[in-house]
Amino acid sequence: MGNQIGILGSGSWSTALAKILTDNGHNIHWWIRNVDTIRHLENRRHNKHYLASVYFDTQLLHPNPDVYEVVSNCDIIILSVPSAFLKDVLAPLPKDIFKGKKVISAIKGLVSPENILINEYLETEFNLPLERYFTITGPCHAEEVANEKLSYLTFSGTSLEEAQIMADYFSNDYLQTIANTDVLGVQYAAVLKNIYALGAGIAHGLEYGDNFLSVYITNCFREMQAFLEKFEQLNTPYDEDPAVHNYNASAYLGDLLVTCYSLHSRNRTFGNMIGKGYSVKAAQLELNMVAEGYYACKSIYGVNEQVGAVMPIAQAVYAILWEQVKAEEAFLSLEKGFI
Amino acid sequence: MGNQIGILGSGSWSTALAKILTDNGHNIHWWIRNVDTIRHLENRRHNKHYLASVYFDTQLLHPNPDVYEVVSNCDIIILSVPSAFLKDVLAPLPKDIFKGKKVISAIKGLVSPENILINEYLETEFNLPLERYFTITGPCHAEEVANEKLSYLTFSGTSLEEAQIMADYFSNDYLQTIANTDVLGVQYAAVLKNIYALGAGIAHGLEYGDNFLSVYITNCFREMQAFLEKFEQLNTPYDEDPAVHNYNASAYLGDLLVTCYSLHSRNRTFGNMIGKGYSVKAAQLELNMVAEGYYACKSIYGVNEQVGAVMPIAQAVYAILWEQVKAEEAFLSLEKGFI
Repeated sequence: MGNQIGILGSGSWSTALAKILTDNGHNIHWWIRNVDTIRHLENRRHNKHYLASVYFDTQLLHPNPDVYEVVSNCDIIILSVPSAFLKDVLAPLPKDIFKGKKVISAIKGLVSPENILINEYLETEFNLPLERYFTITGPCHAEEVANEKLSYLTFSGTSLEEAQIMADYFSNDYLQTIANTDVLGVQYAAVLKNIYALGAGIAHGLEYGDNFLSVYITNCFREMQAFLEKFEQLNTPYDEDPAVHNYNASAYLGDLLVTCYSLHSRNRTFGNMIGKGYSVKAAQLELNMVAEGYYACKSIYGVNEQVGAVMPIAQAVYAILWEQVKAEEAFLSLEKGFI
Repeated sequence: MGNQIGILGSGSWSTALAKILTDNGHNIHWWIRNVDTIRHLENRRHNKHYLASVYFDTQLLHPNPDVYEVVSNCDIIILSVPSAFLKDVLAPLPKDIFKGKKVISAIKGLVSPENILINEYLETEFNLPLERYFTITGPCHAEEVANEKLSYLTFSGTSLEEAQIMADYFSNDYLQTIANTDVLGVQYAAVLKNIYALGAGIAHGLEYGDNFLSVYITNCFREMQAFLEKFEQLNTPYDEDPAVHNYNASAYLGDLLVTCYSLHSRNRTFGNMIGKGYSVKAAQLELNMVAEGYYACKSIYGVNEQVGAVMPIAQAVYAILWEQVKAEEAFLSLEKGFI
């Protein structure tokens, strides 16, 4: 018997990950809060709420509404709940629950209100060392995984070999995996891309065209890279050289592109309404959801007080959403600085 | 009286440039081969074949079917004919015609069959020194210029100050300009992006999804940057350091994005038909045109024999179009190398 893998979360991304792993023959212990969803999954072999076209081999699926049991039974735990709910989900668990286990975060977001990375939270609350923490990132609409369209996921960890071992659980004919050691940077990239996608939506709402959008995204990537390089420098011991990461890679530029250009992106849709003149409240009511980029730009604003990167785009999105600056004016001030 | 500016060419990009310059109050001597087009332009104030919604201040326009007169009358000549026609257009002119003049190339392509840059051709044939040669590049659909949607153009020359002077003719409320000194690199970037857009069309025709497309474009950008850096090294005297250019800028990444993502791109459309299984000949007949990327991938193949960059994507597109390699197979071999 191989490692037992647990998934916490039942949204579309969790469902896509469960599909990949069961397609690869792995047993999944799947924490799903809603017992109706579990019953339906057991009887009808699919998640009726998300990616309903995906049917599972239920021999390999062990859905369970008890988060303690799922975590206890597994060696590898995949966190795939929205970042805003992570604390609530883990709150009932004993502080030593992750001892000896490996955790893979598929979460895109920071932990509020501290504005810390998932690994920092897990280290503080559950004493999980960074060496046992991994991330999954990628330009990866869950819908395309459901359709088995070739997609790329990046697995990051402090050790390249360990990250590669995690990646190997997921590799198959429609899923190409990449391993790297930028386990902190990829998380910030995933947060930043939502802010920039929200801004892309705003630009579209303001009726900028495709020419401008391509320049905007180019400058977003430049800003993202500047932030990541600055962060890397700050987190490198003074007697070492900062690690050089290739940001022209799918986990950084690729994820930014798919998020900014996709019409399915919630952040882009939300931004579009803001650009058209809706208030944040009206856009939230209309869409019946809050885009991740909305909170992300506030968190990054806080993080960047330490990092100190030059981030006019992220600051403009923050000012529009949180400081009632008019979108037209914020973008007018950005236009001049683009190269 | 200021400098007299000439434009050679009457397509959509020439028409957009004529609009920008006349909007800025500059006199334009405009070489248009077709006298009917000229008569229509004079009587009805627009180019009936391209961007017909753009009306001109005819006081500022001097259309002329005589290329010798246009070049003779001007201090600054903008070349904006398709690269394949450049030799024919300039052939009747005396070899010293550009003496003391400045030339701006708005052409995206190399001169065949020598596979040389426009400036190399002008230097060889007309003795034009590189110091008097400039380029206009950008992510810039002419249609959006016609609609005065904010767009960005990059002006390149060996001297930043001189490039900025050229840029200033074009700057206005809907046209932001950038100057740089990478006058050779920007030309290769403009050629490469057409090859990659053709490949994006092929990928779409092969039914890859948005996740893959974003990874593909990311790796195209990586390949473009590797080529440009290698070229820069090779063209730097051995006792100097290669110039460092910021490729996260609109003339490079921005232009690649707009070309690969635009549904209006002819290269993408052409590639799409190839991906769906049409032969090159059938695609050409069906579309009644040849996509620039078709010739570009052959030219770059030749250029890269000298440069020696690692270019699996450009080579795959070349192999599909010129060596009858099946598109599926060529892309299968690319998939593994993407990061």
